[in-house]
Amino acid sequence: MPLSIKKFLTNCATDTFLTYSTVKVVQVPNTCVASVYRVIQCVIIAYIAFYIVWYKKGYQQFQEPRGTSIIKVKGITKVTGNNSIQFTKPSSSYLWDTPEYQIPPLENNAFFIATRQIVTHNQTQRNCDSAMDDKLFCTHDSNCTQDQPTPNTFGYYTGNCVSSSTNSSVKVCEINAWCPEELTRSVEYVANANDIQDFTVYLKTMVTFTLFDINMRNVRDDTNFSCRYDKHSNPRCPILRIGDILNTLNTNKSALLREGGLIEIRQDWTCNFDFDADKCYPTLAFSLLQSGDDKQSPGVNYRSAQKYRVDDEDYRILSKIYGLRFVLAITGKSGQFDIVNLFVAIGSGIGFMVIADIVCDAIFMYIHRSRKKYREGKFKTCNIKLSKIDHAKYPTSRTSLSEGDETSIYKIHF
Amino acid sequence: MPLSIKKFLTNCATDTFLTYSTVKVVQVPNTCVASVYRVIQCVIIAYIAFYIVWYKKGYQQFQEPRGTSIIKVKGITKVTGNNSIQFTKPSSSYLWDTPEYQIPPLENNAFFIATRQIVTHNQTQRNCDSAMDDKLFCTHDSNCTQDQPTPNTFGYYTGNCVSSSTNSSVKVCEINAWCPEELTRSVEYVANANDIQDFTVYLKTMVTFTLFDINMRNVRDDTNFSCRYDKHSNPRCPILRIGDILNTLNTNKSALLREGGLIEIRQDWTCNFDFDADKCYPTLAFSLLQSGDDKQSPGVNYRSAQKYRVDDEDYRILSKIYGLRFVLAITGKSGQFDIVNLFVAIGSGIGFMVIADIVCDAIFMYIHRSRKKYREGKFKTCNIKLSKIDHAKYPTSRTSLSEGDETSIYKIHF
Amino acid sequence: MPLSIKKFLTNCATDTFLTYSTVKVVQVPNTCVASVYRVIQCVIIAYIAFYIVWYKKGYQQFQEPRGTSIIKVKGITKVTGNNSIQFTKPSSSYLWDTPEYQIPPLENNAFFIATRQIVTHNQTQRNCDSAMDDKLFCTHDSNCTQDQPTPNTFGYYTGNCVSSSTNSSVKVCEINAWCPEELTRSVEYVANANDIQDFTVYLKTMVTFTLFDINMRNVRDDTNFSCRYDKHSNPRCPILRIGDILNTLNTNKSALLREGGLIEIRQDWTCNFDFDADKCYPTLAFSLLQSGDDKQSPGVNYRSAQKYRVDDEDYRILSKIYGLRFVLAITGKSGQFDIVNLFVAIGSGIGFMVIADIVCDAIFMYIHRSRKKYREGKFKTCNIKLSKIDHAKYPTSRTSLSEGDETSIYKIHF
Repeated sequence: MPLSIKKFLTNCATDTFLTYSTVKVVQVPNTCVASVYRVIQCVIIAYIAFYIVWYKKGYQQFQEPRGTSIIKVKGITKVTGNNSIQFTKPSSSYLWDTPEYQIPPLENNAFFIATRQIVTHNQTQRNCDSAMDDKLFCTHDSNCTQDQPTPNTFGYYTGNCVSSSTNSSVKVCEINAWCPEELTRSVEYVANANDIQDFTVYLKTMVTFTLFDINMRNVRDDTNFSCRYDKHSNPRCPILRIGDILNTLNTNKSALLREGGLIEIRQDWTCNFDFDADKCYPTLAFSLLQSGDDKQSPGVNYRSAQKYRVDDEDYRILSKIYGLRFVLAITGKSGQFDIVNLFVAIGSGIGFMVIADIVCDAIFMYIHRSRKKYREGKFKTCNIKLSKIDHAKYPTSRTSLSEGDETSIYKIHF
Repeated sequence: MPLSIKKFLTNCATDTFLTYSTVKVVQVPNTCVASVYRVIQCVIIAYIAFYIVWYKKGYQQFQEPRGTSIIKVKGITKVTGNNSIQFTKPSSSYLWDTPEYQIPPLENNAFFIATRQIVTHNQTQRNCDSAMDDKLFCTHDSNCTQDQPTPNTFGYYTGNCVSSSTNSSVKVCEINAWCPEELTRSVEYVANANDIQDFTVYLKTMVTFTLFDINMRNVRDDTNFSCRYDKHSNPRCPILRIGDILNTLNTNKSALLREGGLIEIRQDWTCNFDFDADKCYPTLAFSLLQSGDDKQSPGVNYRSAQKYRVDDEDYRILSKIYGLRFVLAITGKSGQFDIVNLFVAIGSGIGFMVIADIVCDAIFMYIHRSRKKYREGKFKTCNIKLSKIDHAKYPTSRTSLSEGDETSIYKIHF
Repeated sequence: MPLSIKKFLTNCATDTFLTYSTVKVVQVPNTCVASVYRVIQCVIIAYIAFYIVWYKKGYQQFQEPRGTSIIKVKGITKVTGNNSIQFTKPSSSYLWDTPEYQIPPLENNAFFIATRQIVTHNQTQRNCDSAMDDKLFCTHDSNCTQDQPTPNTFGYYTGNCVSSSTNSSVKVCEINAWCPEELTRSVEYVANANDIQDFTVYLKTMVTFTLFDINMRNVRDDTNFSCRYDKHSNPRCPILRIGDILNTLNTNKSALLREGGLIEIRQDWTCNFDFDADKCYPTLAFSLLQSGDDKQSPGVNYRSAQKYRVDDEDYRILSKIYGLRFVLAITGKSGQFDIVNLFVAIGSGIGFMVIADIVCDAIFMYIHRSRKKYREGKFKTCNIKLSKIDHAKYPTSRTSLSEGDETSIYKIHF
């Protein structure tokens, strides 16, 4: 036994380190098929090299950036106070500067510009008649089920049916709520549409590609601060005019300013860090996520209350704020050379080379008129079990093979 | 030399374009091994085609969406004012509508519903006795080191030891802080647990797949706004009842409402953009990130102050706000056909085909009883250096090979 | 025809399931080349196994986490009120606790610590002289074009040129704005730099790896809450001292505290979920995204207004708030075993094995002195079209081949 193992190991070593094995090759002089073979190979190589590796950047590893921004909105707008039935003040003019319309003043990668506000002053918790617009009309106390919330969830029914303070001939349910109701007695402030479009927003963005350990920012030492962003003439300017953004959106601008909307500013960092990383600047794109005239729940608005106390009683100023909500999306697929990706792309490309063999073998075996001779040259039968298998079926010379042996090709290559 | 180069180039061209080379194949009629070979090939092909390409979607490129949402919370709740020692007002009832409990009113992919507030009115910067609950008891001024911050960092010691205003028989350190302290004299407002669970939240989400240039939203033209979300019966409804969300969380609900908690609403966009992109709707999942009865720092709360001035003196209303913080996570892995991924998946699959050859060769060379004959047929020795290598070791017929030449197989295929 | 199809199918089945095909192999006893062959193979295998699969974790699928945090800032600071020309109050001292400096009090993965505030009280909309610092000097009304916004966009020119209220010998444009202007009459509050650095922030983070369905948090049951984070001695502590963060930033600290800045706290979750997922803790890194002494738009500040009403007139308190803005970035590339990735990595690696064959064949065919004999052994010509191709060029024995047939190698392997 030890002798056998020793022999085994000797043979093993001999075979592995002393002998080089290579496949036996049959050469067929045939211009046409050889050309087909080369063309297929070239196409595959070109596909790998140019499309997968070069065009699709198969040699790069990609990452989306993470970013934070400092946003400053600048501008002033004239505001008119509305004088309709429910809005009690006669029309007069006000002005809003940044702290008035940019609320909340500090957000992460987002900002809001109020375009319209409905403000209800001196609200306090008490019983009052519901607003005419609530349409909670009644004829008898039993129409107003006590302690049930009203449909708009502003208050609870008190169970009383009372005369409306707006029109005493109409009876409405009394409610326990923050009174007076927003729809009863409030002031509507509407900012001037032209003034809003003249607002500018300054976007300073810092992005990080953690994978490559690269930090970038859109504002550099040579940035000019008197510019205005323009897609074509000044794409690197960090200062954007609101009106310019709105003009790209292809929407009903007056509805947008009246009802509010949600606009995405997409800052796309598509950089090639293998070349000229310093010259990489983001591109901007604007898209309207929520228009002012959507069929389903149009616009953007929210309510904010500010509390104060008089004689130990809580009062509040309620504001319903309509406006343009901008969200800054920092996207992009920046790439850097990565050995693993290149390796995988080339490695799997090599696998495809076998296609050329399969096609050319198929031509010679099934289509070419000398296919008989080709088979004679290529194949050799090694009958290891003559006694068991029907000998006649596998003649040594293998000249009788018909179309049926298509699969032989696959046997060879796979 | 020029002649030699010309000859070289001629030969080169001849070989490349006029000759087709193919490997010489040895065919062995053996049902058993041939079947093994085919079965292995089929398994590999099936694995590539069904598992890697089809099931694991190896032919697709994936991207996680980026999204923004418009969130509206609706509901009204009755609130009771607490009447304990530190909460000074007798128990009475209030009501909170949306602007009272949704604070801040506008967040990006998040919202907060206050469930409890501890409000301290009329705080101003002055010296006062510390609260009993602060446990800053003292017997002498020297116990209260002047200008040191108190442990709760609400104020600084003044260096005086004074009688507590709550219980004059106890002496506590005097502090310079916003007085009265929160723990001395405040009102606790607790929202009704049932009312809160009846709140609804409307989620309108706009997502973008930048890679495929696809925009989607969960609210479409046919969305019904009178529905309530239910995982089974109404999974596409954009309106969720808070109580339904809490019911899925498997937690102590009363602790959650009392101390606050952090809940993630995960909106998962797993779409196949190759088929029926229009029919892709997100699925929702809820998970509790922070419960109200965690061992370590339970609940969610924050303090907010509102300033006002009386006679040139700053006052503030301090609110400690407990509540349910919901965070909307927009996730998902949506795929679209990508030629590079398909290419890489198939290309590397082809590489695996060699396994079938290795296994079958191993059977014939080491296990099959006719292995001698097989080797005779398969191998041919080409002795290029008869003088140097021991000839006897490498007989042309190669009939004496033992188990040792296992590695020959690898020589062939790799 | 039916007979022919039957024959075809019979042959097909015979070939596929009854015959095993293998390539004919030529063995060359040559220690040197065999060794080269084995070394190249070993290098490729080692590269795949150790670099691609093991070191670069080619067997894993990676995901970046999504996370949410609960952030609490604790600390108290002494504040001095500034007494310069434009700041009207004599220097006096105040104190700020958390609700005073952490504004907004609730943000998503971010927090703000105010370090300086310029507060303008009792602003109301009226006409007033512009501030000296606005430099809107004039000599005649015509210098102040009526209804034009001022350059700082705080107001509109009224068209009048009036004496400055600060220095009556200077004439400035009158403006319609929220008066008095911030630069005319405000109080500057500056927090104590040492106190701010003693603030602590508690970060509780919950992350989700949706791909692996794994939830993790940085605060666990055994977390000690009396610790302070230190990169070396206490890297898992969730409580960070602000001063320790600032010390890592290598910046002008006094400018940073005065003008504000933007600091990223990067929490990196690089976990290997195949081993010891429980022991995975995030690492923290701090980077300064916006310093206080940047050449371009230094610091971080924003304006916030608080409205109140006296006798139906709107007033507001305007605060310009400078401070440290911290943004928590949750990053990381955590991996878990993935069969597809391993498959692709190995599969494309197999493709590379062919390099060993190419190199060794090249040695034997072009460099080795017995290349003639090698070719004789390896190649066999199969002339299928003797009549068309010049027979002399393709002798059966193939002894006359020159360097030109380099490409023959590729014919074999690809």
